[in-house]
Amino acid sequence: MITIAVDMMGSDLGPEELSKGVIKYLDANNDVSFICFGDPERLKALDNNPRVKIVKTTEVVPMETSPLGFLRLKDSSMYKALEAVQTNQAQGLVTAGSTGGFITGATLILKNIPGVKRAGFCSYFPSKVKDKSVAILDLGASNINTPEELVGFAKLGSLYYQESMGKKDPSVYLLSNGTEEGKGLEECRQAYQLLKNEKDVNFKGNAEARDALDGTKDVIVSPGYPGNIFLKASEGMALTFSSLIKQAFKRNLLSKIGYLFAKKGFTYIHDLFDYKKTGGAMLLGINGVAVKTHGNSTGDFLYYSLDLAYRMVKTDFVGKVKSQFKE
Amino acid sequence: MITIAVDMMGSDLGPEELSKGVIKYLDANNDVSFICFGDPERLKALDNNPRVKIVKTTEVVPMETSPLGFLRLKDSSMYKALEAVQTNQAQGLVTAGSTGGFITGATLILKNIPGVKRAGFCSYFPSKVKDKSVAILDLGASNINTPEELVGFAKLGSLYYQESMGKKDPSVYLLSNGTEEGKGLEECRQAYQLLKNEKDVNFKGNAEARDALDGTKDVIVSPGYPGNIFLKASEGMALTFSSLIKQAFKRNLLSKIGYLFAKKGFTYIHDLFDYKKTGGAMLLGINGVAVKTHGNSTGDFLYYSLDLAYRMVKTDFVGKVKSQFKE
Repeated sequence: MITIAVDMMGSDLGPEELSKGVIKYLDANNDVSFICFGDPERLKALDNNPRVKIVKTTEVVPMETSPLGFLRLKDSSMYKALEAVQTNQAQGLVTAGSTGGFITGATLILKNIPGVKRAGFCSYFPSKVKDKSVAILDLGASNINTPEELVGFAKLGSLYYQESMGKKDPSVYLLSNGTEEGKGLEECRQAYQLLKNEKDVNFKGNAEARDALDGTKDVIVSPGYPGNIFLKASEGMALTFSSLIKQAFKRNLLSKIGYLFAKKGFTYIHDLFDYKKTGGAMLLGINGVAVKTHGNSTGDFLYYSLDLAYRMVKTDFVGKVKSQFKE
Repeated sequence: MITIAVDMMGSDLGPEELSKGVIKYLDANNDVSFICFGDPERLKALDNNPRVKIVKTTEVVPMETSPLGFLRLKDSSMYKALEAVQTNQAQGLVTAGSTGGFITGATLILKNIPGVKRAGFCSYFPSKVKDKSVAILDLGASNINTPEELVGFAKLGSLYYQESMGKKDPSVYLLSNGTEEGKGLEECRQAYQLLKNEKDVNFKGNAEARDALDGTKDVIVSPGYPGNIFLKASEGMALTFSSLIKQAFKRNLLSKIGYLFAKKGFTYIHDLFDYKKTGGAMLLGINGVAVKTHGNSTGDFLYYSLDLAYRMVKTDFVGKVKSQFKE
């Protein structure tokens, strides 16, 4: 039996919505139990389930929080969920709460695995090719990174891709402003040289941001700040297009009829960009499985994040990182 | 009469295509003449036009070029076009060739305006709001920038927006990974403090990459490397969606009929993301009007870039930068 701690508070849609995902996952998987942290009044749907333990917490980490702000909230659902992993009551945790709080908390409470210089915040992105996702890190756990940290990200991302996608020797690229060897930030140029000789990584060179999601790449490594800009710019543009497509079809009766005729192709686009199945973002290199799901997660979305946490515990991802980073 | 130098070589679609844009602009504007640099054999369409001077060049700057590589190509169409501005034969230039070559050439041949520490590569982006564009710089003339250079970009971008869009006191934001004051790279946090006290700039704080194109912002400033990542990530996602929408409608006879019904809404999306009218990118802070148009520019696209160059000469943009940066 694998136990996952779930921070039920601090999401946009509330603990009632997240509870649906917990219940759905319990129904689908007999080998899992949950410790759910939050306001018991809002977790009634989970009452009396033999594989759910509800732990009352009185505080919620706000979306925008400083490291110090987070550390003061010792009775928050997020703090307690992290602590449950640290004290081995649970083997992994999932939260839909503050990303800043999550990164601070995971780094300070769970700590980095020995040999890991920096943890990397990693998420799968959909690509132009159906069912082909790209893992990108760091998406903003750091701002700037040393060449050695970037090499660490490459190793972590590679192992993560292998364990979560089941593909050996995934291809690894450095995000850059040009494909040629000399392009990019100084730290990336140095990492390029180190990666050429790194046996644990199937390094393929630089990838331009424009081609990152072309479906030919498995893992893309970047310092945290440009990685975050990449994430947010892609997200912004995808959201803009999604909302424009919806508007275009809702325009009038004619366009609604048009939708009925063209529906299949647009369902395909929707499926292609369905972030649900990628399961959220994981902080790699941390001493524990720590998954961050979308702030506006529905129960369905949470389901996939719970599954990601479950699979990463099951495959002993943390143990594998430990042995790879042991000097 | 305003004279614009045009580098006719080094584009994807060739000088024959670009010639169409030159002819179209000559027809639309009596107050302009062109010096066109390139292979005369491929510029026959421009022969005998009293307002076109064709200058034969024998070399073409390749798309991927190093600064040294560029400097060796002294008889290239790009080098000669830049030289024409430097020697006052033309007041501005437009090129569809290598971006790297263009930035190197403009910086070394035309040089920065006194007081400008770094030139900023600036382009308009379409936003969610129709006919509302956002100027973003630096898109990659530099990789990293000092706080003072970022303040310079803010002043240049602000003046550019004012002169090209005719809006006084445009709002200026710093691209960041969070809207709060303390967010972002160290150099951006310092620039934030300087910008609060900068009288020439209507500074509004940080903008997240996700909200950059929401149509509420006029100018966005970033160091060159993350700026370039923003540009390429947005472009990549927009291209992906455009091609997916096309595919969805071309799927079969039914979907093609669907398109006929829903056409209007999708024409709207197309118009919204029509980069043509934004006229290409300009290198701001350079001692001369220097416009870079898309590598795959059609004649129509070039038309708008020629118009941008014309308008920036006409409004004496360079003179205005000179007086603002005079100490």
